[in-house]
Amino acid sequence: MTLRDLIERKRDGGQIPSAEWHAFTRDLAAGTLPDYQVAALLMAIYFRGLSDDETLALMEGMLESGRTLDLRHLTVGRVDKHSTGGVGDKVSLVLAPLVASCGVAVPMISGRGLGHTGGTLDKLETIPGFNTRLSLAAAAAQVEQLGCALIGQTGEIAPADHKLYALRNATGTVASIPLIAASIMSKKLAEGLTGLVLDVKTGAGAFLPSVDDSIRLAQMMIALGARHGCPGVALLTNMDSPLGIACGNAIEVQEAVEALAGGGPGDLRELTLTIGAEMLVLGHAASDLAAARARLEAAIQTGAALEKFRAIVKAQGGDPRVCDEPAAVLAQPALRLPYVAPRGGVVQRVDPQAVGRGITAMGGGRNTMEDAIDPSVGFRITARPGDRVNRGDALATILARDDATAAAGRAALEAAFAIGDTPPAVVALYTHRVTATRVERLST
Amino acid sequence: MTLRDLIERKRDGGQIPSAEWHAFTRDLAAGTLPDYQVAALLMAIYFRGLSDDETLALMEGMLESGRTLDLRHLTVGRVDKHSTGGVGDKVSLVLAPLVASCGVAVPMISGRGLGHTGGTLDKLETIPGFNTRLSLAAAAAQVEQLGCALIGQTGEIAPADHKLYALRNATGTVASIPLIAASIMSKKLAEGLTGLVLDVKTGAGAFLPSVDDSIRLAQMMIALGARHGCPGVALLTNMDSPLGIACGNAIEVQEAVEALAGGGPGDLRELTLTIGAEMLVLGHAASDLAAARARLEAAIQTGAALEKFRAIVKAQGGDPRVCDEPAAVLAQPALRLPYVAPRGGVVQRVDPQAVGRGITAMGGGRNTMEDAIDPSVGFRITARPGDRVNRGDALATILARDDATAAAGRAALEAAFAIGDTPPAVVALYTHRVTATRVERLST
Repeated sequence: MTLRDLIERKRDGGQIPSAEWHAFTRDLAAGTLPDYQVAALLMAIYFRGLSDDETLALMEGMLESGRTLDLRHLTVGRVDKHSTGGVGDKVSLVLAPLVASCGVAVPMISGRGLGHTGGTLDKLETIPGFNTRLSLAAAAAQVEQLGCALIGQTGEIAPADHKLYALRNATGTVASIPLIAASIMSKKLAEGLTGLVLDVKTGAGAFLPSVDDSIRLAQMMIALGARHGCPGVALLTNMDSPLGIACGNAIEVQEAVEALAGGGPGDLRELTLTIGAEMLVLGHAASDLAAARARLEAAIQTGAALEKFRAIVKAQGGDPRVCDEPAAVLAQPALRLPYVAPRGGVVQRVDPQAVGRGITAMGGGRNTMEDAIDPSVGFRITARPGDRVNRGDALATILARDDATAAAGRAALEAAFAIGDTPPAVVALYTHRVTATRVERLST
Repeated sequence: MTLRDLIERKRDGGQIPSAEWHAFTRDLAAGTLPDYQVAALLMAIYFRGLSDDETLALMEGMLESGRTLDLRHLTVGRVDKHSTGGVGDKVSLVLAPLVASCGVAVPMISGRGLGHTGGTLDKLETIPGFNTRLSLAAAAAQVEQLGCALIGQTGEIAPADHKLYALRNATGTVASIPLIAASIMSKKLAEGLTGLVLDVKTGAGAFLPSVDDSIRLAQMMIALGARHGCPGVALLTNMDSPLGIACGNAIEVQEAVEALAGGGPGDLRELTLTIGAEMLVLGHAASDLAAARARLEAAIQTGAALEKFRAIVKAQGGDPRVCDEPAAVLAQPALRLPYVAPRGGVVQRVDPQAVGRGITAMGGGRNTMEDAIDPSVGFRITARPGDRVNRGDALATILARDDATAAAGRAALEAAFAIGDTPPAVVALYTHRVTATRVERLST
């Protein structure tokens, strides 16, 4: 069986048997397949899709191409959260220590930002000294000791996915639901989880803007996890505007510390508590969502959550003073410039893609995985859709390195903000809860 | 504009402006594009197609990536024929000298066999000494002198198409109508033609089996030619069975010589005269198809056609005795074995794909462009669909190198022949004639 033959069968809508997907991922990890044939296969999958069996086989092949975190000896539940990627989304930074402080282990492997979305690793690395490059063995030891480790994908985990992802990114085949599901789950199941909460973004700033596609993606990921002993819950959350106020790397860490200390923007707190409650229930640390939420609120109230974050930062070589005086420890921008309303009216939207691209244009994100990033740049966006503003009112602050980056940031905000005359439709923070057996419409 | 951006727009069904296709083919010929991105684009084109304007721009870009035969100083018409590829199809070998002997110049650039179809170049090279590797300048001089040159695609012609074709072949994207049309026409228009006849194969042995797809391909190629001052006519001809009796390389040259001398199988003669008449009319050497056909028949009758072939063979270094005693000059098989009917009945079909794959299995075709071929092997297939046969009647002769190749040939014929009890539907030799303005249903 040649790869060309496999491409042609998939091109014509055929089902590829599991054994061939396993052989494919083995050869992919071994580096013996021509990139151009893999690229053509990816585009054929983009158009033809994968059946549930094919998606499972591809996911398992990628999972088995690498090593996994072995945490089976832990008696507590091991639960992680995965987000499909947003702008201003610093939930992971708050959630991981918060949930760990409530007795559920959180072995969190995060990614870097690419395109318009930010990445948890880039944010963590703005803390001086913070080391995200732990081996799987060191991460396992830290999870055992502290209940949490915050690391990046190492070459040990799902190397076949790593190769496939690079090609997907170069060939316009990222936004394929079965490819997304197999890619995410091959990495998440390598964490040795007993539960997983999926934060699937919908709306203007999401990779998959439509609700139907997002539900399908959520169901596919939950089904893949269930086949590997990892029950899951997904929340469809809205990414029509950036989450919280801070958008950028250092500034988002600062906002996360505020949230751990009991402050921070309401939407960030609400989303963190909602996801965290699901994690506590999945991790058998609470009997229902209401009890879980109360426990999380108490952990913030008592300072246990912030102390857990301090312990993690310390264990991973970072400067723990970030928990006390974040502004003194984190990189600060050279310039802070107000961005004011060009006219009076009602804020219609704050486009997260424009904001994300603006951060990248200012040097705070990357277009290729090799780009270095400037941790200090970004925005504080204080105006929300629905806010009534007068001409000249401050809508945001631009955090810039110099005049040129300030101009790029200003241009991005001009594109991001729309001001009109009538109030826009109210958009809920999250809209659906998806489990293995049902889809619930949520009202927030 | 990056190539990824172009891929994504094509993936989403967008129209790519002409300037971008020209830049694409320029970069392709220069070798600066990653194969994997080109491969993904090809698969996106396979699914989304190309508009007429896009196909034209891609074709022009590929044409302009190389050099062309400059024959504008010739006063006679310059007309070629292109076939989309069949089994047993030696029409070009008869047609080129025949039409040239009637005063129309035929600058013919042919290809090699690949997969189950044969190639004119491979057949010509079975004539000892015959050189198909003329430069464009030498080919132009020979066309001026003799009215015909029979050469292969050189690196000078449409190098962007050459690269694209290799990738299409490796990625399952050959059978895309706009890609086929742009590829063929970028090479044919490099011949500096004033007319072109297209032999578009339909049926079991064709790349595009359906009649509707074949008509679409024909119309697309005619439209591309018309935009470059090259009017065209297409015939849809049937490839449900091999053409003629001889299938193989040397044996097909022998049959072509017989046809030039006035003999040979009836279907080969009929198709050659039909296509030739179109070429004479397009080349202004006859006022209508009936007059053209009479002129061609006379050229065979008087021996002018065979003499033209002799002159071409001589000019290109080949042994001219092939015109008198082909069997003495051409490679002969070590074994000739009858293939007899395994049961009595009516021949239902002779599958050309099975025959073509059989030739390749015996060493007479190639799976990759690097394979060498054995000119002597092949088949003489004397039974036709509709023939009544008794058990033990000879249906074909296997021309083999040794017992192993004979066994491969026998297996192929077992797959190719189907014998049943009732007469099969009669299949016409050609079914449609397509011009710039109309599609005619033909009855033969």
